Amino acid sequence: MDYSSKLIEDAVNAFATLPGIGKKTALRLTLHLLNKDPGTTTTFVEAIDQFRQKIQRCKQCFNIADDEVCLICKNHARNRSVICVVEGIRDVMAIEDTAHYNGLYHVLDGVISPIDGVGPEQLNIESLVERIKKEDIEEVIMAISPTIEGETTIYYLTKQLQGQDVRVTQIARGVAFGGELELADEITLGRSIVTRIPYETNR
Amino acid sequence: MDYSSKLIEDAVNAFATLPGIGKKTALRLTLHLLNKDPGTTTTFVEAIDQFRQKIQRCKQCFNIADDEVCLICKNHARNRSVICVVEGIRDVMAIEDTAHYNGLYHVLDGVISPIDGVGPEQLNIESLVERIKKEDIEEVIMAISPTIEGETTIYYLTKQLQGQDVRVTQIARGVAFGGELELADEITLGRSIVTRIPYETNR
Repeated sequence: MDYSSKLIEDAVNAFATLPGIGKKTALRLTLHLLNKDPGTTTTFVEAIDQFRQKIQRCKQCFNIADDEVCLICKNHARNRSVICVVEGIRDVMAIEDTAHYNGLYHVLDGVISPIDGVGPEQLNIESLVERIKKEDIEEVIMAISPTIEGETTIYYLTKQLQGQDVRVTQIARGVAFGGELELADEITLGRSIVTRIPYETNR
Repeated sequence: MDYSSKLIEDAVNAFATLPGIGKKTALRLTLHLLNKDPGTTTTFVEAIDQFRQKIQRCKQCFNIADDEVCLICKNHARNRSVICVVEGIRDVMAIEDTAHYNGLYHVLDGVISPIDGVGPEQLNIESLVERIKKEDIEEVIMAISPTIEGETTIYYLTKQLQGQDVRVTQIARGVAFGGELELADEITLGRSIVTRIPYETNR
């Protein structure tokens, strides 16, 4: 498209580098900012710039943080004897949204995947073992995707934690709420029968 | 959603102010920038900031411009005796994309619409009349949407240009190329019969 302006072309190309945004949408966003007063763009640009320059990883759990330690690790109202181990920061957000968990987290930043060249040393595993040694942790919940890489990671972590006085659990797997039994895959359905639980606890 | 970081929350909210971008997409865009090195965000933010701070309207045709005069008005290879009158800058882009027009433009910045409180004095009409008086213009093409407001605007402009030695034309209206006759609306189809043209010129 001929924008007859280098400035607008640069802005459109900038938006178009974002995932899921093509040239047409990028132009729409650019013209939207053009129609608003310049202050709107300044506010927009500053929020994103500040976020990227100032955001850190929590030195304790590797969640995203505004300071050295994230808000979850800082919050003394939370149960500090449970650590939920997750793959990434999005998982922290997803679990926080359920409002069913009140403990701490540990973000691995991935799973063990030899095909992708990701070994245990690339993940935040050593720091997790250290935390469990030093702090008074009673339970470690593995909230990791039930994929081959995920299972490998859980197995490796469990080996690393052997000998520590800590209970290792994993999130329940089974047929999703609202899901149709006949549409569930064989492995999930089969495992959900084998790992069935007493009726009361499921309420 | 609980982002456990004010910085990320501000960035997500900034993206979510853009049209067609909800909170979930905004989070995806924010995390995309987080996964890239900080330089990517700086480039992104600067392109948009520069665009909004520096962009101008061409003092001659009111198209967007990097300087006082836009690239189209500056281009002496274009036919300077024809002015195409359009509602907005998007129309300039759309017509430029056709590569079928080589003249100049004049952006009105809207159409006359008493319901929306837009009168002729809010539009760039006086400057158009001045241009036609001063410059050596032979033809003015009205490329304005065939709506009631558009027709009113064309009528008003034509009245204003009366007495000037200039030919006023308007873009052809009719059944769109590739369009099915039976799906065309009555008015378009009816007018396209009344305003039929000799076969040769239509090639």
